[in-house]
Amino acid sequence: MNLTPVNHEVESYERTRRFGHEGGVLWFTGLSGSGKSTLAKALERKLFDEGYNVYMLDADNVRNGLNSNLGFSNEDRNENIRRVGEVSALFSQAGFLVLSAFISPFSKERRKIAKMHNQNFHQVYLSADLATCEKRDPKGLYKKARLGEILDFTGIDSPYEVPKKSNLVIDTKNLSVDKSVEKLFRYVTNKIPINKS
Amino acid sequence: MNLTPVNHEVESYERTRRFGHEGGVLWFTGLSGSGKSTLAKALERKLFDEGYNVYMLDADNVRNGLNSNLGFSNEDRNENIRRVGEVSALFSQAGFLVLSAFISPFSKERRKIAKMHNQNFHQVYLSADLATCEKRDPKGLYKKARLGEILDFTGIDSPYEVPKKSNLVIDTKNLSVDKSVEKLFRYVTNKIPINKS
Repeated sequence: MNLTPVNHEVESYERTRRFGHEGGVLWFTGLSGSGKSTLAKALERKLFDEGYNVYMLDADNVRNGLNSNLGFSNEDRNENIRRVGEVSALFSQAGFLVLSAFISPFSKERRKIAKMHNQNFHQVYLSADLATCEKRDPKGLYKKARLGEILDFTGIDSPYEVPKKSNLVIDTKNLSVDKSVEKLFRYVTNKIPINKS
Repeated sequence: MNLTPVNHEVESYERTRRFGHEGGVLWFTGLSGSGKSTLAKALERKLFDEGYNVYMLDADNVRNGLNSNLGFSNEDRNENIRRVGEVSALFSQAGFLVLSAFISPFSKERRKIAKMHNQNFHQVYLSADLATCEKRDPKGLYKKARLGEILDFTGIDSPYEVPKKSNLVIDTKNLSVDKSVEKLFRYVTNKIPINKS
């Protein structure tokens, strides 16, 4: 067998033509309880029904698999986010629109993630404040953090660095899920349009 | 905003219906120079042209990104393979047919990878022997390993554990690239058929 490389790789534009849209990433950042997974899941449904090839990444599908060997120290959390960033970039290269929902509290790490992507990277900041998120406490995590049962919890004993500049800000303190999803949907169909012909 | 989870996730069967085929993984294992990337790349082209939603993972797209913080010790190589296994599983869940091309020399690690996948995981062993691969030496790596410039190189000073049982074995010592790809293509279209209607 001759190992000369075969030079007719599947190119990015071919995937775009097949899928009807470019690959890209919507990176949701915000406090626990700000609505990242809720909105990403609802948006995934809406975009899929519109014809998009869309996939959501959140703690549920990486913490037990790819990142199962990481804890919650700052170092491990940064590595957690770094890996997800790289996986998002692979999915984007493969032509998918990725919805990544992670607290991602540190500006420096968020900047690194943006740099991993050479197309259609959009940071979405969910701006609900700590009091609002702590009141919701959908997983009971804030309560545990206040009791000291969880350490290094973002907003309690670990900082969340509010993004100075995001591509989109959603005020999930005041906006309903439906209105928020509608805003996200309009943003995506405008920035990464789909050709359904 | 009410954070009650939205229970209409995009289900696997919907992706299968959209793409016309199930997600799955072809995991290529074999010595350096056995033809893994060459065959995976040519197969990717052929399957894409047939209408498959296919994506290839090899060292080229993970060593500088996802696995850039790993070296070549046995421990790091196992972690390299583990991460790629998990990423393959995510792509498969998203409906892709993934072609993963990695030496993956250890039986134990290959078994772990198989277990990460709950559908359509197929191990493909490229059986070209060391003498054949070393003679090809497409990247000059065997030469460097013989000179001691690369340590822990599979086949030289690190073992390759030949799979006792694979889903498909391709004798790339004797079979041409075209014949090998043809065999792989028939295997895929048989095991993971595509509905082009």
